Parts: sequence; C-alpha cells; structure tokens
Amino acid sequence: MATVKDVAKEAQVSVATVSRVINHSPKASKAAIQAVTVAMKKLGYRPNAAARALVSQSTQTLGVLVGDVSDPFFGSMVKAIDTIATEQGKHLLIGNGYHSAKKERETIELLISQGCEALVIHSKSLTAEELITFANEAPGLVLINRFIPEIAERCIALDNLKGSYLATDYLIKHGHQQIGYICSNHDIEDTEQRKAGYLQALKDHGLTCTEDHIEYGAPDEAGGELAMTNLLTRGLPLTAIATYNDYMAAGALSALEENNIEVPKAMSIIGFDNGLIARYLHPKLTTVRYPIQRMAEQAAILSLKLANKEKPVTNNMIFVPTLVKRLSVVPATSATSV
Amino acid sequence: MATVKDVAKEAQVSVATVSRVINHSPKASKAAIQAVTVAMKKLGYRPNAAARALVSQSTQTLGVLVGDVSDPFFGSMVKAIDTIATEQGKHLLIGNGYHSAKKERETIELLISQGCEALVIHSKSLTAEELITFANEAPGLVLINRFIPEIAERCIALDNLKGSYLATDYLIKHGHQQIGYICSNHDIEDTEQRKAGYLQALKDHGLTCTEDHIEYGAPDEAGGELAMTNLLTRGLPLTAIATYNDYMAAGALSALEENNIEVPKAMSIIGFDNGLIARYLHPKLTTVRYPIQRMAEQAAILSLKLANKEKPVTNNMIFVPTLVKRLSVVPATSATSV
Repeated sequence: MATVKDVAKEAQVSVATVSRVINHSPKASKAAIQAVTVAMKKLGYRPNAAARALVSQSTQTLGVLVGDVSDPFFGSMVKAIDTIATEQGKHLLIGNGYHSAKKERETIELLISQGCEALVIHSKSLTAEELITFANEAPGLVLINRFIPEIAERCIALDNLKGSYLATDYLIKHGHQQIGYICSNHDIEDTEQRKAGYLQALKDHGLTCTEDHIEYGAPDEAGGELAMTNLLTRGLPLTAIATYNDYMAAGALSALEENNIEVPKAMSIIGFDNGLIARYLHPKLTTVRYPIQRMAEQAAILSLKLANKEKPVTNNMIFVPTLVKRLSVVPATSATSV
Repeated sequence: MATVKDVAKEAQVSVATVSRVINHSPKASKAAIQAVTVAMKKLGYRPNAAARALVSQSTQTLGVLVGDVSDPFFGSMVKAIDTIATEQGKHLLIGNGYHSAKKERETIELLISQGCEALVIHSKSLTAEELITFANEAPGLVLINRFIPEIAERCIALDNLKGSYLATDYLIKHGHQQIGYICSNHDIEDTEQRKAGYLQALKDHGLTCTEDHIEYGAPDEAGGELAMTNLLTRGLPLTAIATYNDYMAAGALSALEENNIEVPKAMSIIGFDNGLIARYLHPKLTTVRYPIQRMAEQAAILSLKLANKEKPVTNNMIFVPTLVKRLSVVPATSATSV
C-alpha cells in the first residue's frame, strides 16, 4: 500500500505538506491541495485515520466499555449508543470488561490511548477512586449504571432500590404476604440496592422480612433455578417470588415447572430488566423495565458534548424503572400456598 | 494533556527521540529511555496509540463488521472473536452494518483506515465484486457467513441448504408429510439456500412441494407470527412447520397458541440457529445449531494469521449445522391435522 512518503514524492512536495492537505490545514496552498489529491488518487492512497487523529487531535470514535457484549442487555446499550454516535458521524470502539477489575482497567486504558475522547463506561469492578482518576484524565468520560457522588454530573444511573421496591410492592398489592426473594450472589452495588428495595417494601407494608425468604445464586438461569430449588426445600408458605433479574426468574420458572407448581396459579413471579427473554418465557414475564436504551442514549449525548467541551444541558441523571405487566402475577386470593 | 513536544522539552531531547523511546526502537539510547520515561511520568503523558500505530505500522485492534450487535446471534459472534483477540493481546473495533450496503461500506472503510489489519466482516448487502476489492486491499480481511468462490480461502461460511434439509428431513422421518415453510422475505443468499434445503428434502422423499405451503415474513417474531397466520388461513392439512430461524418459530408459536393449536400435539415446529431464545420458548424449541461461535473463532484466527503474513493452516471453511432435539417435534401419528 502507498505511504505518505510515496504521495509526497509523486506530488513533488514535502511529507509535511501532504499532512497539511490530508488534515485540511488552512496553511495548505491550493496548488499543494491539487497536487496531493491527484497523487493520492493515482497511488490509491487512503489517508490513515491514525495519522489524521494524531494531527487533528480529534478522532471519529466513541469508546464504550461494557460487561459482555454477548449479553442482550449490553447489546441494547451498545445499539443505543451507536445510534447517537452515527447521527454525529462517529463510530464505536467497544471493549468487554467481564466484570473483572483488571480487564476493565486495561480496556479503559486502551480506549483512552486509542484516542477516544468520548467514553461511555460500564464499570462494576473498579473502585470509585480509580474511576474518579480516569474521569479527571478524560473529560469526555461518562459512567453508566454507576453512581459516584464526587462525579455525579458524569453518572447516568438507575434507581435499583426503587425498581425492586416497585416489583415487591406490586406483589403485595396483589395480596401476597409470603414473598420470597431470589438474589444475585455478585458483590456489586446493584445486588445490595435491589435486595434493599425488596426489604423496604415488605417493611413499609408491615410484613416481616426474614433472611430465610431470600436465596442467592449466580445472576443467570442456572443460578435462579438453584436458588428457587433451595427456597422450595425450606417448605415456606410462599405465594410469590421477586427476583434479581429476568434470567434468574427464567431459572425459577424451570424449577417450579419441574416441581409441578403452576405459575401464576400457585405462585406469582416478577422479574427485573425487561430483557429480550421476558416476553418469550411461559407465562410471559411480568417484570420491571430497566430503561437501558434511553440511559445509553443520554450517556452518549453527554459524553460527546463533554468531549467537545460543550456545556451539557442539565438533565435527569438517575432513571427510574417502571412496571411491565404481563402474565406471571395474579392476585393471592386465587393462589394456593405451596 | 501533555504532548510529545512537552515530553521532549522536559527530557531535553528531540521529538524523534521521544518517539523512538515510545516505540521501543533499538536506536534509543539508555540515557534517552531514562530521561523520556522520567519526563513522561512527571507530565502524566500517556503514549497515544494512534502515534504508536503510525510508527510501528501494526495496531492492536481487530476490526469486526456485524449486522447488529444487539442481536444475540451477533453478540455470540463478537464474543467468540473477542476471546481469540484477547488471547493474542488484541482489542476489537466493532461496527454495525444493519444489512445496508452504504453502512457496510462505510464501516469497512473506517476499520481499514483506522489501521485494523485483521478484519472479520459479516456483509450481506455488498456485492461480491466490492468485497473482492476490499479483500485485495486488506490482506487480513476474512468474510464470515458468506461464500465467494473467487476468494474461497478467505470465507468462513455455513452450509445453509444442508441445515434446512436436515430440519425438514427430521420432520419427514417423524412421519410428517404436510409440512409448511415459514421463509424470510430478506433478499439475501441465506433465504434462498434455506428454502432450497426444505424443497430438496421434500423432493428426495417423493413429497410434493407447492408454493402454497410457503409463507414469507420479516425474519423476526412479528414476521413469523404473520406468516403462520397466513398459512393457517389457507386451511391446508399441515402437521409440521419448518422455519427460517428461531425468531420466526417463536412468532409462529404465538400464532398457533392464539388459534388454540397445541404444539407439538397438533403441530410440530422446528427452528434454525439455536439462538438464545430457543430454550426459553414453550415448548422448548427443537432446532438446528448454527455453530457461529466456532466459525467466529476460526475467522478470527485466520484473519490474525493473514494480517501477520503467516501461512494459515488449511482447515474446513464450510461449517455444517447439526440438530438440537428439544420438545417441539413429535411423530405425526400422534398429531391431529388442522
């Protein structure tokens, strides 16, 4: 492939002149522009984006760190960011952090050193201190699904507690009093907040909340199946289950089906996320909507504005989940306790 | 943020010397390395990846074009490529093509000009000619899920016809003789090949295949629901349905449930892809496995080898789908025709 040097030689100008033409410098003369353009065309030279970025100090890419792009939750997030980026002529550089501090750190380092000035970061494993340092270094860095008070204006987060409160409250208002909770065993803030929402709702309705109504598992289908099985083993008179997310709810549904406990007739169940699978489950899952698409759009807009040194419009930064009513919750009166 | 010039000034060396140190050039003296390292640390200078790439002419990124990363099919593909890339110390630059020729072209152009020498491309809308041109320009470009004879050694593809043949054959061997087909309305080779596999299986078993057994729709849940509804309207004595993909099968299941046609008792149904949703459907979907993960791994390995000018090991390039037996197909003898 032709290099800048080849183009300079062909156009009979210096490499610096070729660089000025490629980067639309006002210092480039009309004659130089013409000679270089003809030479580039003749040699089939494609201006290298890395070379352009180096000189213009601005790049066409928005960097995104997600947990795992093969999880549809992050897929939706990436797609929403891509929509905004495309509107503004930017492309995405995406990295997976897999909820590992090392991998998250390496990916953020790469994105910054790759020249991404706008960054949307989903980090669950790095400490607040480290993220504050990154945020100070990269003025266009925005956190999604994480709230750090010191850099609150750079955080787009979800009110997890309220979401879980809403779900549990919905079950209670349907007459359920013996409500189990299937909790994640991941040590991240989402886990604590969602569990706290469940406990708060019980408390506000004067219902006792004991630890034996809560079971833990990996936040996936297998984890939900295991946690549900363990809950059933306890022989509690449960009529409803709130869950950490839709995947765990899917696993719980499998465990209930295996044990011939009919949902929703004998047991109501509510999810969290309103992910892709919620409407494919049987019965279709009543759940709580995680507005990841709108949050991701806002994070992308904020990040691009900050990277561009524009003053962002003050918007709501903490999003609130809403109920999605489907077929997995019915009034307790029609339910038979296990 | 500090620039290379600031570092050079601080270290009292030339910009070229700083560049040599950053790029681990053997020409850099020990004294220069020490002075530059101290200066970079003092100024908090982070070597810019774009600058490094420009000098070393090799980059750390593998470029990936997918249809839409929010589709779990592409999510799995990206994850498999990322696994290989991570093992080799590379990161991914990902772009969506949304099956639009313009968007696919722009994204490939960006990935190449961004310095990606290894490229895994999922293109359905560009012509073979255009892809051959790109392949000639970028020696590390590999196509996935597309077969172009002229560049066969750069194509990792699926035998779509065989997959669909397998699915239909499985229904026939279960005694089904009146088999409908729910087909995609996207004008891509996958559509033609999968339909051809269905027709071939019928023919090989001496069953008549008429166009009125085939309905078309968008390759998603809504498209499947519509196509199934249209098939039912015809009043054919169908006992089984083969489908273009799992999403269309999910839509067909909805339409059948609404019409009180029990699956699999009154109607068997088979999917294609074995995507995320297949095991969440009710009944759990019998389908055909699209080995996208293994294909993506092989594409990534091939691409990195080619970009590195290594001779690739000759491997099988055309993958064959296999059956995934779940609960949505039963023998025709136990089925009642509609």
